[in-house]
Amino acid sequence: MRPRPVIGITMGDPAGVGPELCLRALREPKVLEQCVPVLFGDAAVIKRVANHLRDFKNTAPSSPPCAKTLRKPRKKTRTKNKDEMGRAVSMAEWERLGVVNEPLVVDCAAADAERIEPGKVSATCGKAAYACIEHSIQAALAGKIAAVVTAPIHKEALRLAGVPHPGHTEIFTALTGARRACMMLRSDVLTVSMVTTHVGYSEVPQRLSVERVLDVVELTAEALQWMLRRPPRLGLCGLNPHAGEHGLFGQREEERFIEPAVAQARAKGIIIEGPLPPDTAFTPGLRKRFDAIVTLYHDQGHIPFKMLAFETGVNITLGLPIIRTSVDHGTAFDIAWKGVADPQSLYAAIRVAAEMARGRFAGVAPA
Amino acid sequence: MRPRPVIGITMGDPAGVGPELCLRALREPKVLEQCVPVLFGDAAVIKRVANHLRDFKNTAPSSPPCAKTLRKPRKKTRTKNKDEMGRAVSMAEWERLGVVNEPLVVDCAAADAERIEPGKVSATCGKAAYACIEHSIQAALAGKIAAVVTAPIHKEALRLAGVPHPGHTEIFTALTGARRACMMLRSDVLTVSMVTTHVGYSEVPQRLSVERVLDVVELTAEALQWMLRRPPRLGLCGLNPHAGEHGLFGQREEERFIEPAVAQARAKGIIIEGPLPPDTAFTPGLRKRFDAIVTLYHDQGHIPFKMLAFETGVNITLGLPIIRTSVDHGTAFDIAWKGVADPQSLYAAIRVAAEMARGRFAGVAPA
Repeated sequence: MRPRPVIGITMGDPAGVGPELCLRALREPKVLEQCVPVLFGDAAVIKRVANHLRDFKNTAPSSPPCAKTLRKPRKKTRTKNKDEMGRAVSMAEWERLGVVNEPLVVDCAAADAERIEPGKVSATCGKAAYACIEHSIQAALAGKIAAVVTAPIHKEALRLAGVPHPGHTEIFTALTGARRACMMLRSDVLTVSMVTTHVGYSEVPQRLSVERVLDVVELTAEALQWMLRRPPRLGLCGLNPHAGEHGLFGQREEERFIEPAVAQARAKGIIIEGPLPPDTAFTPGLRKRFDAIVTLYHDQGHIPFKMLAFETGVNITLGLPIIRTSVDHGTAFDIAWKGVADPQSLYAAIRVAAEMARGRFAGVAPA
Repeated sequence: MRPRPVIGITMGDPAGVGPELCLRALREPKVLEQCVPVLFGDAAVIKRVANHLRDFKNTAPSSPPCAKTLRKPRKKTRTKNKDEMGRAVSMAEWERLGVVNEPLVVDCAAADAERIEPGKVSATCGKAAYACIEHSIQAALAGKIAAVVTAPIHKEALRLAGVPHPGHTEIFTALTGARRACMMLRSDVLTVSMVTTHVGYSEVPQRLSVERVLDVVELTAEALQWMLRRPPRLGLCGLNPHAGEHGLFGQREEERFIEPAVAQARAKGIIIEGPLPPDTAFTPGLRKRFDAIVTLYHDQGHIPFKMLAFETGVNITLGLPIIRTSVDHGTAFDIAWKGVADPQSLYAAIRVAAEMARGRFAGVAPA
């Protein structure tokens, strides 16, 4: 049997679909096949969601079709009782725990469970979601878990809770002290990474530099080299319509930032084409030529990605000292706590995290 | 038989695929079924391209499958000789001509045909392409043709020729004195219009205003009302990631420009939703809810459109006193004068122009 890495999963915003998706992941055979999942959450919230879901049992969809490689769930060894939540441990117990070989809930005890209403933005929920992320990052930096997979958070709730970061990527970058990091979205049909992410449209040009573009190109090449075990072929988009058409549009950002970054990346042996006109880079014919396309701003990458892989993609933060993947959907407040949310994106995020973790154990992780 | 409007077609950049596509259109039964095509070009260039194509005859693809409604070509009445170009008239003859009832080439005599090389950017070609556009606009404003359909031009060639406009949309807006105009891209699967088009990325925010957004919303609603014969359902994108998330990203462009434009459009009876988060607006589930999506900048509309309708879409300029449609592809210099360029987009542009022209004759055109 392959070694199963211990993967931390954060509960996300308690008022969203995170808790129920995490509960399903803790019992999902194809998850248990690949890793030992450890859920960082609030045990009282998780229990309340589990009870709540029982009311929706009859309307909930049946388990999705299993992957080909799936073995039978070994319930006896994995879950010792019938409680849907499984075993919960306090932070103190978690600190003392040696080898982790069964699914666990690590009780970060951060929220006032009874006050939480599904589908409602609140500072309480933002605070709880952030606490789970913090604890999971500490565990990963300490080597106690091999990767962190995150369920969705709500940006406004985070802000209400006084968290000074707009999203997961920024939180992980700050708390791990990463020098350079970026977001990558990966699916079977398209992989994109982003030079800027959660910044306003008008702030993007001032965030561009040859160094930053090159950083993201290198991180993308490194991650894909490791995933594919061969040198990847990268594309790099321009900023302006038609990539500026040789200075016809824009402030020559293509000549100032993109072309030098392409030249320097090539000098380092990276296979890359650019600047690509953004509007043709993602057409069926062209996108097939690239293992990943590096984009310059949020919507340049997110519009094509979500068209092709809506709610099934995996969000990966590159450049961290720890492995971190995430679902590629939001808190879905409108269907929270109803048991109808689709767990496929979370399962995919766990699969990618486990693959990356096994790769690291095998010594093939990026330096 | 339905009345067949006289449709002007401009040759485009002589060094690109425009001349050969126009030549095919002049002889294409499904084009002749719908309109009387009049090609504004340089007769010497067209003849040279026609001769050139004969060398590629054996390698050229056969005619594409015909539309269901297609009748047999009536060659005898339409083309009086075997010359591929058909009848050419000088500008002086064209001015004197009364009723037009057969395909014609109007010889704008603007280029030095022998100096033109396929696939080469040149001021000569830019000048010739621009002359054809100018003459076609004059003919349309005079009511001698019912619409103008344009083949692709090359923006750098235009610039070399000293033309002070970056693209077709801007030329048509300037030469017809249109107060408000915008670009629309239309296909069977997605229709988008754009608040800004050929401006650099960083100039977009300063071009936004409630008035301009509302203008484009109104032009879009008007055009679709006429095409669909019912009130269309419109979507309107935000500018920032996640449409700003209530001020979390950006300079509150959504609150300053988009929300007031939506309110004013609704007050005028337009069915519209917005601001939509740009990255989810084009996902399969959401885009079906709209007959058209109004976007704020070139790539916000062009990236999704070209992913779904690459080289098969029709480009329409809304808000002009004349009808104008265009192919949605470029000059394709790499395959110019080889007879392998796909004419489907040009045929679609002619079809839409003819429909719009017939609509105008029937008194259902927008005011």
